[in-house]
Amino acid sequence: MSAGKYQQVVALAGGVGASRLLRGLVRVIPPESLTVIVNTGDDMVLHGLHVSPDIDTVVYTMAGAADPDRGWGLAEETWNALSAMERYGMDTWFALGDKDLATHVFRTSRLAAGAGLATVTAEIARAWGVVPRILPMTEDRVENRVVVEEGGRELDLHFQEYLVHHGSPDSVLRAYAAGVSSAQALPEAVAAIEAAHAIVFCPSNPVVSIGPILAVPGIGAAVSRSRARKIAVSPIVGGAPVRGPADRLMRSAGIDVSCVGIARYYAGIVDTLVIDERDREQAEDVATHCKCIVANTLISELRASEALSRILCEGVDIRTPQE
Amino acid sequence: MSAGKYQQVVALAGGVGASRLLRGLVRVIPPESLTVIVNTGDDMVLHGLHVSPDIDTVVYTMAGAADPDRGWGLAEETWNALSAMERYGMDTWFALGDKDLATHVFRTSRLAAGAGLATVTAEIARAWGVVPRILPMTEDRVENRVVVEEGGRELDLHFQEYLVHHGSPDSVLRAYAAGVSSAQALPEAVAAIEAAHAIVFCPSNPVVSIGPILAVPGIGAAVSRSRARKIAVSPIVGGAPVRGPADRLMRSAGIDVSCVGIARYYAGIVDTLVIDERDREQAEDVATHCKCIVANTLISELRASEALSRILCEGVDIRTPQE
Repeated sequence: MSAGKYQQVVALAGGVGASRLLRGLVRVIPPESLTVIVNTGDDMVLHGLHVSPDIDTVVYTMAGAADPDRGWGLAEETWNALSAMERYGMDTWFALGDKDLATHVFRTSRLAAGAGLATVTAEIARAWGVVPRILPMTEDRVENRVVVEEGGRELDLHFQEYLVHHGSPDSVLRAYAAGVSSAQALPEAVAAIEAAHAIVFCPSNPVVSIGPILAVPGIGAAVSRSRARKIAVSPIVGGAPVRGPADRLMRSAGIDVSCVGIARYYAGIVDTLVIDERDREQAEDVATHCKCIVANTLISELRASEALSRILCEGVDIRTPQE
Repeated sequence: MSAGKYQQVVALAGGVGASRLLRGLVRVIPPESLTVIVNTGDDMVLHGLHVSPDIDTVVYTMAGAADPDRGWGLAEETWNALSAMERYGMDTWFALGDKDLATHVFRTSRLAAGAGLATVTAEIARAWGVVPRILPMTEDRVENRVVVEEGGRELDLHFQEYLVHHGSPDSVLRAYAAGVSSAQALPEAVAAIEAAHAIVFCPSNPVVSIGPILAVPGIGAAVSRSRARKIAVSPIVGGAPVRGPADRLMRSAGIDVSCVGIARYYAGIVDTLVIDERDREQAEDVATHCKCIVANTLISELRASEALSRILCEGVDIRTPQE
């Protein structure tokens, strides 16, 4: 690699967990060297508005504008439009904040004007001053669906319906990403993977966040072909997800809810898995599948995210400005 | 007319001036007896959202929810979505309040789902507990355009652009309602006119509010055919509009900016014109065109609106519950 040219890093990202890692990562590597490929399987059209939950969480968090407690949505948000929607009997289970609404209205109107989701995502990221490239995994429609059993019947729900509206019940029968097998990978995402020195699998839900990204045929193939260093951070700590319903979804997919289960899931795909200090005793088991790094992975604090990012970079031989 | 059946009243309405009369009128006549036919020439699609300024002003005002000072929009409104839109470089000259946004999102999603504007308007009115029937004049697209001279060039603006974005400049060359001559009148509006005992021409801009309603061929014809009593309230008081740019638009249309100009404009259409006490000396001139009633027409206070409404009802022989 020529001097002065940064080592390129690609991150595969879902929502909150990924975002919290990425905001530390860009303090350790040059932001220009990072490309984030984001899951769009949680996207939905709500009241005619195109909502991209994971893209928005990544952009808002990297801009330092996300609500620190919720993890999603904007800080100092208000909910007056949402309250007013109740009057019209509109579904209000998905919390659309007033400031957040501007993003959805902007995205929807730009898409209606013929712009692609990648272009609109770039415009949104630029508007928030986010320097890394934020790319949707595809511009085709992919929809994470979760099938649950409720009162003896199977209910086939959009992931956000499952998560928010139904409160993530335990009775998951299966999850699938509708449309993913025929989705065209975003060409810029494939090119970024091909140019990457390292690929970081963020601590996101493997079933409904990282899984769908890899299931886009062009992305999965590019990741397989790539000779980049591939490192994942386990989203499972102490036998439970740090947040969200990953446990229920993993169980339904036959994945053990542990960092070992994650290691098995990513076996043959990543060469290194970072597990949490609290799971230190499982390091040996993990090491039967891939290289194992033990670190603190609870990164709701920026400082912790930055520390983890340094360990990640060391693990995949990325030169950081400090070295 | 059979006992127990109310005398039906139709009102032709623009925005704020009309709304302020109507909220008094429904305190004087049974709300069920009133049908309001509203100008839709100011409607526009803004950021992909279908905005119907006059319908919303009528509904919000009749619901007692309009901002009392502005006249348009909702009381206790917030503007956080609008501020957030600035970040994306979106046009923010049209003030979309957060609560108001819910109305536009609802309307847009219902229209996209195939509901007609009349149905959606009825749903919105019902949601606000507004009993009188609120009808758009047409479901076809009609667009009030104002051509102004600016820097030696002709600018052809949507009325709301003229009003809000450009600040209602004086240099109006002409105004026209694009699409109006081929617009289909809403059948319910025509039926209401045919059943009406009286038709009230609200104190709205004659050029861009009442004019476009009458210019919808089916409405104009029904009003002409109707043997109902027809009474107008002058929107011009003391040689100037009570609010808005009616003076500029009237001048461009060759209408004298006075209650006499209004009388001439409505000559042959209405049989009675109510002019303001402040214009008492013009009553004789007005009377050469139609019957003239002199009353207080400044009705920003509800009590004044109610008093004017009683006078209107007397003028057209409407039995009010008090009689």
